[in-house]
Amino acid sequence: MLNFTLQNPTKIIFGKNQIKNLAKEIPANKRILLTYGGGSIKSNGVYNKVIKALKNHVVFEFGGIAPNPKFEQLLAAIPIIKKNKIDFLLAVGGGSVIDGTKFIAAAANYKGDPWKIVTQDPSPIEHALPIGCVLTLPAAASEMNCGIVISKTNSPDKISSGNDLLYPQFAILDPTTTFSLPPRQTTNGIVDTFIHVTEQYLTYPVGAHLQDRLAESILLTLIEEAPRVLSDPKDYNARANLMWSATWGLNDFIGVGVPNDWATHMLSHEITSRFGLDHGQAIAIVVLSLLSLKRKQKKEKILQYAKRIWNITQGSDNEKIDEAITKTKNFFESLGIKTKLSCYGITKNQVPALIKQLKSHKLTALGEHGDIDLKQSEKIYRGCF
Amino acid sequence: MLNFTLQNPTKIIFGKNQIKNLAKEIPANKRILLTYGGGSIKSNGVYNKVIKALKNHVVFEFGGIAPNPKFEQLLAAIPIIKKNKIDFLLAVGGGSVIDGTKFIAAAANYKGDPWKIVTQDPSPIEHALPIGCVLTLPAAASEMNCGIVISKTNSPDKISSGNDLLYPQFAILDPTTTFSLPPRQTTNGIVDTFIHVTEQYLTYPVGAHLQDRLAESILLTLIEEAPRVLSDPKDYNARANLMWSATWGLNDFIGVGVPNDWATHMLSHEITSRFGLDHGQAIAIVVLSLLSLKRKQKKEKILQYAKRIWNITQGSDNEKIDEAITKTKNFFESLGIKTKLSCYGITKNQVPALIKQLKSHKLTALGEHGDIDLKQSEKIYRGCF
Repeated sequence: MLNFTLQNPTKIIFGKNQIKNLAKEIPANKRILLTYGGGSIKSNGVYNKVIKALKNHVVFEFGGIAPNPKFEQLLAAIPIIKKNKIDFLLAVGGGSVIDGTKFIAAAANYKGDPWKIVTQDPSPIEHALPIGCVLTLPAAASEMNCGIVISKTNSPDKISSGNDLLYPQFAILDPTTTFSLPPRQTTNGIVDTFIHVTEQYLTYPVGAHLQDRLAESILLTLIEEAPRVLSDPKDYNARANLMWSATWGLNDFIGVGVPNDWATHMLSHEITSRFGLDHGQAIAIVVLSLLSLKRKQKKEKILQYAKRIWNITQGSDNEKIDEAITKTKNFFESLGIKTKLSCYGITKNQVPALIKQLKSHKLTALGEHGDIDLKQSEKIYRGCF
Repeated sequence: MLNFTLQNPTKIIFGKNQIKNLAKEIPANKRILLTYGGGSIKSNGVYNKVIKALKNHVVFEFGGIAPNPKFEQLLAAIPIIKKNKIDFLLAVGGGSVIDGTKFIAAAANYKGDPWKIVTQDPSPIEHALPIGCVLTLPAAASEMNCGIVISKTNSPDKISSGNDLLYPQFAILDPTTTFSLPPRQTTNGIVDTFIHVTEQYLTYPVGAHLQDRLAESILLTLIEEAPRVLSDPKDYNARANLMWSATWGLNDFIGVGVPNDWATHMLSHEITSRFGLDHGQAIAIVVLSLLSLKRKQKKEKILQYAKRIWNITQGSDNEKIDEAITKTKNFFESLGIKTKLSCYGITKNQVPALIKQLKSHKLTALGEHGDIDLKQSEKIYRGCF
């Protein structure tokens, strides 16, 4: 097991009817900026519940945060914060809204070029506004971590960053808010969670057997609950398990003490920013190609995955690995997720443009060994067709 | 899945050579009271490492905290704290030292009768001194929770309590500090962790499938690592997995959203306080009797446990349950833990005294259904022979 540090201060308030407890979590004298996305919270009733719960607070609004939240759009919140003396941000939505809100929290009092909040390593901020969340789309786990992914408008920049100051103070997770999610958002969330787990699990063994089993717990839960929620979107326990699993996929608990990969995410960000695929669609494609290409380095863990997740016990090591990748592909396809870039009208001729983007983002040493250079990345992209 | 709240602010610093980072976790101006137990930290080198790491801090000492820490003895720390203006407590040891230190932290500035800190529900404290830990005995998980178990000298009072103010600020977990543990302490720790998990897992199903699998992850890890550490006490990864599993056994992560039992612990506390058995010895005996008696109410979960932990797939439900209990018993015995009260010279004639104790502690409605009354408790005790 590798040495590690773990501290996750976010308070989770989970379950039915928990939104009505929102006001208790925000001091009465706070001036709140309520942030949200395209307005689904207005049609599904969550907005009204939040406003009702906050009837004794001063609340301003900043709506319309886009999927893959855009730097330029988020900056528009800063003058609203300054003008209205906002001192608490409440994000109501999914990972994009929460990520965008974290960026606003960091940028609100930042003196320098705010793009450095996203691009500078280590993150330069020394202060952030406090944040709370009401989660409505389980996938990113942003409600219980300190990471952000921010994009630029009209640019292939989609950058991951983070700072300990950006853990939300609390997150309310009411599974009933996800009953009305379109199937595509539900299944994207399942795939996103699945691959958050594999990024932290399918690397190489370091003897962290507890973490391995915890990671497997999440994968098995996703595989078990996915068909339930697809056949009955209002199955409370299926929604609850998927929601809690999504948080666990990236709340630090399973990723400490083990190597982390994250190449699938990095390679997929370039696809999403260039071609507009959903994050869940892009990662489903890339991970299958990546696991096939890196089968030698990841052999022990893929074989463990094959056995414990898919019950694959017959055949040579290579046959088992092939079968594990096929079972993974079949699982994604059972969710209606396509598993080739060509399904989205993208051709191999467009691979060089992706490689150029990776280069411009200095993503030339990816994966748990830092050995996925541009040449290997090209092979992985070519394996996506 | 049941509604729940989860917030665990403790910072975990895990791994080899982490004690040298101790000073960074305690502000330089803090006046520290270093608390410890019987002195094993002096023979195994941990004490010297701690003192070296704190060479620029002001450090006082309070040693000799007994197993099942005693109320009267702990109160002796209060004048030391007041006289020396102590404002930080550093517990170096296992669960007894940490529990005792938490009690001291709560009692330091408490104005009323300090026994109420342990007995009043909800806990009456409004302030506690900050606490850090260097863990040397994995078992209780006190390093990452807010609970305490405190006893009285010459009395059968061993009382569980807790308060959110008692989460340690940080805990350093270096598995190499456990290399020198006597086998009895190692195996007691394994059993304690095992039963912390079963208290939160072997109840009745509420559809919390993720929590079930997380709980099973810990049980499987314990079963896998126990023989390794018994055959090689310096197997780093085995020690690391056992240490991290022990923390997970009772750090809130697996117990939220599910019913909790805790009858095994409550019934065992009476045995420990009356007859002086180790906590690990007492719970191993009680849990086997309790599972057999409550087999009907716990049927679904015991059958799941039988299948997923012990791979029991043949026979009637009752036969599977019997086999699961036998496998559990065999596991404890493989650790050298005896599984009958008679092995410790206790006779059935002493059961009424235990029942009298339960009654005096008002423990007359135990278990996840609150239906273990004194009559059922007597049956469980009688099943321990």
